[in-house]
Amino acid sequence: MRWGRYTADGNETYGLIEGDTLADVEGSPFGQWTRTGATRELAETRLLAPVMPRTFYAAGLNYAEHVMAVANERGETPSLPEAADIGYRAINSISGPGDAIVIPADAGEEIQYEAELVAVIGRQAKHLTAENCLDCVLGYTIGNDVSERGWQRRDRTLWRAKNTDTFAPMGPWIETAFDLASAETVVRLNGRETIRFPTASTIFSLADFLVRMTRYVTLYPGDVIWLGTEGKSENMKAGDVCEIEITGIGTLSNPVVREG
Amino acid sequence: MRWGRYTADGNETYGLIEGDTLADVEGSPFGQWTRTGATRELAETRLLAPVMPRTFYAAGLNYAEHVMAVANERGETPSLPEAADIGYRAINSISGPGDAIVIPADAGEEIQYEAELVAVIGRQAKHLTAENCLDCVLGYTIGNDVSERGWQRRDRTLWRAKNTDTFAPMGPWIETAFDLASAETVVRLNGRETIRFPTASTIFSLADFLVRMTRYVTLYPGDVIWLGTEGKSENMKAGDVCEIEITGIGTLSNPVVREG
Repeated sequence: MRWGRYTADGNETYGLIEGDTLADVEGSPFGQWTRTGATRELAETRLLAPVMPRTFYAAGLNYAEHVMAVANERGETPSLPEAADIGYRAINSISGPGDAIVIPADAGEEIQYEAELVAVIGRQAKHLTAENCLDCVLGYTIGNDVSERGWQRRDRTLWRAKNTDTFAPMGPWIETAFDLASAETVVRLNGRETIRFPTASTIFSLADFLVRMTRYVTLYPGDVIWLGTEGKSENMKAGDVCEIEITGIGTLSNPVVREG
Repeated sequence: MRWGRYTADGNETYGLIEGDTLADVEGSPFGQWTRTGATRELAETRLLAPVMPRTFYAAGLNYAEHVMAVANERGETPSLPEAADIGYRAINSISGPGDAIVIPADAGEEIQYEAELVAVIGRQAKHLTAENCLDCVLGYTIGNDVSERGWQRRDRTLWRAKNTDTFAPMGPWIETAFDLASAETVVRLNGRETIRFPTASTIFSLADFLVRMTRYVTLYPGDVIWLGTEGKSENMKAGDVCEIEITGIGTLSNPVVREG
């Protein structure tokens, strides 16, 4: 099942994506819902980020080659994280599929994509176990954790390096039937493939995070957990289009512009 | 003007606190509102956290003696932050005035309060200037940035050290007419004063944060900015009551319990 979010009659609403068609729904995937019977053309509908979370969790370092790449760039000795310690991001940074990634005028040249699998929480949960933890997950979408590497190296926190407005495109929709084990994450910059990796090759699994987080933290419907990226990214510049595909989910595509 | 948030007829609503009385309002301080004419006794109304923010910003290190205390505890050389770089917290950690601070069963003994002034954003804002930046602030409340120091020292992020459920009590209300220059922050543990400091003696002012943040980040109505704490805190244990007073706002009081 694929859930898309869009604006209809001035209200944000959810619908079911079925091939080229979007079936209108009353309610939402986070509660009761019924089909209204109305449908619309997917190609003519501007999809929004599939959810505005209550809390935007982000795993940060969660793929081994990315940990190495980050350490190399900083001239540090790489060390893998020892526990599934989650981080946080700001809601303002979220934008939707097709929305422009807007580079601030005073940003440097090292504006890089990070292709991430995103888990969307469907129901309130605490004290999850390894056996039941995935039951609270509604589905999966794709995130581009856009990063300004100069700010990332120099600032005391990641605030503008990763949380500038438009630096967290998310979408295109929530896929509820996703086979993580067989999935690949692929990045294409202007149509050229720049990286491909097994989506599941994380240091900590989603289950590791869910079990550890919910010993202390209540998850709520709509919360998102971004699960990190692999490898070393390339720079993006104004005029580029960055596409992130996760097989079995779809493709998140965003153009890049720079503030005048 | 003092805005309180509470539950009436099953709905969360705002009212105006006037002495011992709460005047019901239709609407909210973040938009249009009118008095309904109904009133209730403040003493008989359970106030909630005065806002559930879209993004929960936190300044972190923003008072010089606290920076020294944190560095000393870690055996590091203290260095003051050089720029107003903001951080983020998780919404799940927020609770209201009077709500219990619940220490997880496996937490250590170093559970400490941090008394913080909180600015509540009233309207959407970007690219603020030093001259106009405070216009977007609706008012001020009080936050207790409860911290488990062992986890704070050892974990890769602050996730459970500061974002465990109930570790961010906020309230008791939003005061719109607050004179920061003359305000003092006072902490009392079981009625005994443990620290008192001038609320305004921050390294970076709220204006510094607002101007720097909004070069990159859009602020939204209901966002909160926690402005840091001063000095060294004491441990709290089950059975304690922690009160934080900021003169001109009020007192945030929370009992402490430990999970069985």
